[in-house]
Amino acid sequence: MVIIMKSGASVKEISSVVNRIEEFGMKAHPIYGEERTVIGVVGDERPVDKSLFDTLAGVENTLPILKPYKLASREFRKQDSAVHIFGTNGNSVNVGGSPNIILMAGPCAVESREQILESAHAVKEAGAKALRGGAFKPRTSPYSFQGHGEQGLEWMAEAREKYGLAIVTEVMSPDQVPLVARYADVMQIGARNMQNFALLNAVGESMKPVLLKRGMSATMEELLMAAEYILSHGNYNVMLCERGIRTFEKYTRNTLDINAVPVLKHLSHLPVVVDPSHATGKSEYVLATSRAAVAAGADGLIIEVHPDPSRAMSDGAQTLTPEQFAETVRQCRRIAEAMDRTI
Amino acid sequence: MVIIMKSGASVKEISSVVNRIEEFGMKAHPIYGEERTVIGVVGDERPVDKSLFDTLAGVENTLPILKPYKLASREFRKQDSAVHIFGTNGNSVNVGGSPNIILMAGPCAVESREQILESAHAVKEAGAKALRGGAFKPRTSPYSFQGHGEQGLEWMAEAREKYGLAIVTEVMSPDQVPLVARYADVMQIGARNMQNFALLNAVGESMKPVLLKRGMSATMEELLMAAEYILSHGNYNVMLCERGIRTFEKYTRNTLDINAVPVLKHLSHLPVVVDPSHATGKSEYVLATSRAAVAAGADGLIIEVHPDPSRAMSDGAQTLTPEQFAETVRQCRRIAEAMDRTI
Amino acid sequence: MVIIMKSGASVKEISSVVNRIEEFGMKAHPIYGEERTVIGVVGDERPVDKSLFDTLAGVENTLPILKPYKLASREFRKQDSAVHIFGTNGNSVNVGGSPNIILMAGPCAVESREQILESAHAVKEAGAKALRGGAFKPRTSPYSFQGHGEQGLEWMAEAREKYGLAIVTEVMSPDQVPLVARYADVMQIGARNMQNFALLNAVGESMKPVLLKRGMSATMEELLMAAEYILSHGNYNVMLCERGIRTFEKYTRNTLDINAVPVLKHLSHLPVVVDPSHATGKSEYVLATSRAAVAAGADGLIIEVHPDPSRAMSDGAQTLTPEQFAETVRQCRRIAEAMDRTI
Amino acid sequence: MVIIMKSGASVKEISSVVNRIEEFGMKAHPIYGEERTVIGVVGDERPVDKSLFDTLAGVENTLPILKPYKLASREFRKQDSAVHIFGTNGNSVNVGGSPNIILMAGPCAVESREQILESAHAVKEAGAKALRGGAFKPRTSPYSFQGHGEQGLEWMAEAREKYGLAIVTEVMSPDQVPLVARYADVMQIGARNMQNFALLNAVGESMKPVLLKRGMSATMEELLMAAEYILSHGNYNVMLCERGIRTFEKYTRNTLDINAVPVLKHLSHLPVVVDPSHATGKSEYVLATSRAAVAAGADGLIIEVHPDPSRAMSDGAQTLTPEQFAETVRQCRRIAEAMDRTI
Repeated sequence: MVIIMKSGASVKEISSVVNRIEEFGMKAHPIYGEERTVIGVVGDERPVDKSLFDTLAGVENTLPILKPYKLASREFRKQDSAVHIFGTNGNSVNVGGSPNIILMAGPCAVESREQILESAHAVKEAGAKALRGGAFKPRTSPYSFQGHGEQGLEWMAEAREKYGLAIVTEVMSPDQVPLVARYADVMQIGARNMQNFALLNAVGESMKPVLLKRGMSATMEELLMAAEYILSHGNYNVMLCERGIRTFEKYTRNTLDINAVPVLKHLSHLPVVVDPSHATGKSEYVLATSRAAVAAGADGLIIEVHPDPSRAMSDGAQTLTPEQFAETVRQCRRIAEAMDRTI
Repeated sequence: MVIIMKSGASVKEISSVVNRIEEFGMKAHPIYGEERTVIGVVGDERPVDKSLFDTLAGVENTLPILKPYKLASREFRKQDSAVHIFGTNGNSVNVGGSPNIILMAGPCAVESREQILESAHAVKEAGAKALRGGAFKPRTSPYSFQGHGEQGLEWMAEAREKYGLAIVTEVMSPDQVPLVARYADVMQIGARNMQNFALLNAVGESMKPVLLKRGMSATMEELLMAAEYILSHGNYNVMLCERGIRTFEKYTRNTLDINAVPVLKHLSHLPVVVDPSHATGKSEYVLATSRAAVAAGADGLIIEVHPDPSRAMSDGAQTLTPEQFAETVRQCRRIAEAMDRTI
Repeated sequence: MVIIMKSGASVKEISSVVNRIEEFGMKAHPIYGEERTVIGVVGDERPVDKSLFDTLAGVENTLPILKPYKLASREFRKQDSAVHIFGTNGNSVNVGGSPNIILMAGPCAVESREQILESAHAVKEAGAKALRGGAFKPRTSPYSFQGHGEQGLEWMAEAREKYGLAIVTEVMSPDQVPLVARYADVMQIGARNMQNFALLNAVGESMKPVLLKRGMSATMEELLMAAEYILSHGNYNVMLCERGIRTFEKYTRNTLDINAVPVLKHLSHLPVVVDPSHATGKSEYVLATSRAAVAAGADGLIIEVHPDPSRAMSDGAQTLTPEQFAETVRQCRRIAEAMDRTI
Repeated sequence: MVIIMKSGASVKEISSVVNRIEEFGMKAHPIYGEERTVIGVVGDERPVDKSLFDTLAGVENTLPILKPYKLASREFRKQDSAVHIFGTNGNSVNVGGSPNIILMAGPCAVESREQILESAHAVKEAGAKALRGGAFKPRTSPYSFQGHGEQGLEWMAEAREKYGLAIVTEVMSPDQVPLVARYADVMQIGARNMQNFALLNAVGESMKPVLLKRGMSATMEELLMAAEYILSHGNYNVMLCERGIRTFEKYTRNTLDINAVPVLKHLSHLPVVVDPSHATGKSEYVLATSRAAVAAGADGLIIEVHPDPSRAMSDGAQTLTPEQFAETVRQCRRIAEAMDRTI
């Protein structure tokens, strides 16, 4: 932490700040400049609310120095973490920590037994290792389809057995965690719940892998702090998911922050998955952005696929047909090879 | 809903879109322009996922026409709604629907019995009708103080009895709703939980008044849709709270969207409360923005006050001393009078 | 400037950073923390490109400490600056440095002699001291009306003589400065040109008052740096204008950053003017936001008024009728009085 | 254009809107819905200020239907445009309209004759076809290095002759256009000048190729409208440049909008160039994002390279060394091959 004093701050004000720093068991190193005095602080600043220094007389501003996350940081763990996802019949795969790039695909929502089985068949054929699909759906409107709940999870479980795919599905509240954990291989935290701390605590206490989606306007630091919540409960099986951020651009639903791929891999040891479906909102741009995600270094992709997107109950516009998905896999595979990786 | 066809869309493509519209029980009115065909759609578009029309061949774009919220809209209810808050000893007050402007004030977090009693005394003296204070605290970091939980609620209840103030406190997850509702007069939904739909459903099923904070990057339509979730469960006691939105500005913590005050009152019948503490993040700007909120037409203000902000466990920098709060009330009262209102 | 070293930075890396700091004639003060070393730097950091320190081995990040603007800062000049605007017949007014709040009003564009004379009459009657109107119009589309150019300036000059109003009009490129300065009392720099440095230099070399509009997504620091460009050429007659920033909100054209009023007055001695017309984009919200701007402490307002907004060639939706403007003035005057100011 | 009437709009209000539509020579098609009337408008809406319809009684909102740009649109020209850049000795290259991807590289600023010659040598060796470098520098601060002006252009011309590279350099104001056009093969419009309409007009009247950078917070539609300004003057040699947009992310300088690559190529026939240096602001992320840009379908890359970034006068942190640039070219070449393209 560095505390910047106002120009003209008095000796008394400076020493009163120094005293307060020492109260917290940290050490203060004032540096007297021509225009301003700056106080460098040594010690663990993480548990301290930096905001309170701004209330002291003569203080202009307080700058944190240490990263607020610890367990999620690359400093804590130098090598890439791998998250093991256990599908049926020993079909386990690793996301992260390997040259292999994992594809997760399936419909936005589980709509019927037939739809999810057909989707599972199609994505398996094309090369996916996991099946996505929502049984509990967070919808902006209370009047929209909210998902089939446990029935949807059962249909997914059937697809899981039949096709040997791992299951990725969303959990929306702490009390749903035991139920969802019983069926899912990966519990997804949606973008709108990235800072639902009660939910983060609940999945942190489960040991199931978690796909943590970045909030619509969250910074990477906030994403890593949300991961830290989960890690701090002992669940280290966390995948970070870049799914597009809100920007002023109106032509796409969101803006894929492609920078986030190398940056998150630099800041953290956790695997990084990209969701080009939500990040663009239009199926015609999923191919190009999927290739870009692979080229940027993603460890996995999660893509919306439906047997007939024009009949999808949600997100139709951003959903690929099985044929489009197969072509996306083919082209991404070529990009992966050009990077000495595999799909 | 209006569907814009691509330039050069074929007759067959147009009639296939028309068919799909009719499948949903709506009527299609194609308008053939020089460059493009546009299809006007008559009927209730709310339950329809507009996204799916974008998947049909020849479609460029789909524009919603109807507002997605109904119960929260001014069309649904022409006159201003009043939310009745019942404090002790019949000290009930109305927020909205009256020239009176309600002040809610108190510390960010309940830290101790003494602190909350002292805060209550100070804000009551200055003119506040409700005491705010967090017993469950949503914190960005798992290593920060997370609140005293039920113990904090008990201390608030004591302050409530002693000073005749209504209690405003945050609820963070569906399973906390019964507990919080037992102590609180107003349940606060925090900005990060604005689209925590499980929580919205839970407070919707309670009949307690709800203070719904706008999400950090939420549009007003999204705020109203979050309110719609609560209203659609039968709980009409909802206050909308503008607490600043995230912008590129770094000097303030958030940006108070002052436009939101007249706009929300135009779009909706629900009362509008402004939180200048979070909207600026710095105590020195709370006075000017409080005056502005009153001048813009707010029905209430919620302001952070602490006996000693420099010892506050959170949000110290944006917290007023009792003296600063009293001065803020004095100045806001003058503005209110200039608008033929009262505080 | 504070340089944060990577955790594990070597002694050699630290001393190489120290050497580079000393090359620039500044002094380095390393502080050795448990997790990281931080180097405080004393000396004038303003001319140094801080970016280059990030290229040195072992450096994590570089934080500026000093504000990059000097002449525009409150430290440079403690008391409020007044900008003198000279209208005809000695009708000079001051913006800033006085309890008086100045109103500038008129149409978006000068459309005809009759329109500008009629506008001038109406705004003068209602209490405005300056007439706004664009002769050179920056339009998003090359196919939109681009303004009447010098002819428009002549019509404004006629209105100026007839009604004793000062003239505020936009200048769009350096070569237009001499022409515009011949007619205008205040040269307006539009939001899209806030970082048109060639233009800032040109108006800096004129001595005419400048109304500098904040860029659509500019921070306050960037606005103050744009002002600094003008001041550094010797033209101190600069008014800062908050005209709304771009946010995700779709219901309004822009978002009035009401925080900017007290913040800019805290950071700078320059007068602050608010443009509620552009900041909302809808005439029905101009009244409430004008009141809010006065309550927040603005030194002036600039408002779009047209004899018949429904016939305006641009910005009709955000333009007041003369009657609406007169009512706005009446209400703002009451707010001003409640703050011991005048209009 | 579609005009949405308020619920409850009267027959008289509707017919008055219809009359106004017909005044503009367009045709009105009212559609009477259960909740609202919507009026479809047929005819060229581009020259009409849609804002004025919002001023008419009973109108809720006006939605444009036609894209506001014409010459820049894919509808205007189906096949990809190629921009011919003429270097020395017949070393001309095409950007766009070919499987070949063009690299432009060099320092942020021209600092000295030696520096620019050394840079030219390095980037030529690695495979670049054009040399970038600023002689006129738009700097946020008036106290920063502003470029060597014409002297810098002369040094670039020398490098051009010696290494057969085309020259890309920024022009900052209309009066600089003749001078810069004399030396440059490509005139760059910087992000801050994207809506400097006087400058767009001036380069539109030149026939030199233009590299048009997207404004920091500009939408793609605004970028295409800026291009339309240039095209409407007869200069069709325009390259669109995605250089990162401003977002809330603090860890990177800007956010590369990778979606923009396929979207701009869908909406427009103009070539698309990506600037990963500005889009990330940190040299360590330029490699991954360069690969991503190629994988997304960019026609060219523009990258900052300096013989010694730690001595660069600006933008050092985002600048590659010659070795890093050569490695970037090698890896991008492999990605290009995986897409059946070449570098």
